Amino acid sequence: MKRDLHAHQKIVDRALSIAHEIGLEGLTLGVLASALNRSKSGLFAHFRSKEELQLEVLREITSRFTKTVILPALAQPRGEPRVRTLFDGYFDWIRGRDRKSGCMLMALAQEFDDRPGPVRDLLVEKMADWQKTIARVVQTAVEEKQFRENVNPQQFAYEMMGIAMAFHHSNKLLKDPQAKRLGRAAFEQLIARSRSSQRGGIPRKNSRKAA
Amino acid sequence: MKRDLHAHQKIVDRALSIAHEIGLEGLTLGVLASALNRSKSGLFAHFRSKEELQLEVLREITSRFTKTVILPALAQPRGEPRVRTLFDGYFDWIRGRDRKSGCMLMALAQEFDDRPGPVRDLLVEKMADWQKTIARVVQTAVEEKQFRENVNPQQFAYEMMGIAMAFHHSNKLLKDPQAKRLGRAAFEQLIARSRSSQRGGIPRKNSRKAA
Repeated sequence: MKRDLHAHQKIVDRALSIAHEIGLEGLTLGVLASALNRSKSGLFAHFRSKEELQLEVLREITSRFTKTVILPALAQPRGEPRVRTLFDGYFDWIRGRDRKSGCMLMALAQEFDDRPGPVRDLLVEKMADWQKTIARVVQTAVEEKQFRENVNPQQFAYEMMGIAMAFHHSNKLLKDPQAKRLGRAAFEQLIARSRSSQRGGIPRKNSRKAA
Repeated sequence: MKRDLHAHQKIVDRALSIAHEIGLEGLTLGVLASALNRSKSGLFAHFRSKEELQLEVLREITSRFTKTVILPALAQPRGEPRVRTLFDGYFDWIRGRDRKSGCMLMALAQEFDDRPGPVRDLLVEKMADWQKTIARVVQTAVEEKQFRENVNPQQFAYEMMGIAMAFHHSNKLLKDPQAKRLGRAAFEQLIARSRSSQRGGIPRKNSRKAA
């Protein structure tokens, strides 16, 4: 069956909006059909099952994430500029620059962390890919000798994820007006202590006293 | 109406288990009644509404959290030992030492971050209290001159929350065998750079070169 790609994309976009409201687990063919005011059987031409629908919505979110967060960073020069663009893009994503998918990956991580199945598998794959992408970008900063040789890119990625999650939590749940400032300060500290001494070392007042 | 406290506690425990499985939003009086094999009207003696039930379950979780994570830390000497015990207890909690409530606060933070109402309000209050508790304990380490005077307890609390959230994510969703090691390393780094120079400064190899 030849599918009209434009029509199909519009259905996926609508499905994504619904998943954003009620969670991906609540997104069934029936729910989508009634939102679109069409028959469930009409949707079978697009998705053979609820699971296929969910997988396609998840793919749509991660493809937006790649376009919005990862590609602009990869367009930057290797090293710290690339790391910074990645972080800035991620913060904007979490704040919901692209409101239909912003924060959704974090919501899904929570929603599916104990629901085994293909959706969880794809989510784990995508989230692991994302951490690997951060680590690879950090590695370019090590190779460019902007970051110390003994910086562990995996450790950096873990801590950057932590800062992003604390930001999401403080910003969205607690509505703490300091959320962004604290997150930015944590990231600058992470960058500063990753820098190689050739770039001037870690700008901390007390380090002279300590040495 | 005089309530049998023991019976009431058993109902709350059961409600907590159900919320752990299906989320707090799915926990209705009807669901609880059928799980307990009793009538909905019988439950009205315990909870007048779904909301009251949800609030009581949330209070139960946070009271377990206080007992399991906060009180043992406050029993430690002021300063770094107290900060460390708080962190260790929080990590154990996230890993699910108390399996019925472990991780549930993080799940709830996600579940209710965009659901206005009394449950969200109580959750925000409890989560904000938790960050304030971390900050206050960090402040004791500053007062004991174990941490530098210019350590910002709020910033420390934010970063500690971030480490804990990254751990939860890596451990539960990604099932990364490195999750604990990376989280521990991030925390040790946070402690090390908070220490006052009187305690030997920041044990980083490159800091001498930098200074």
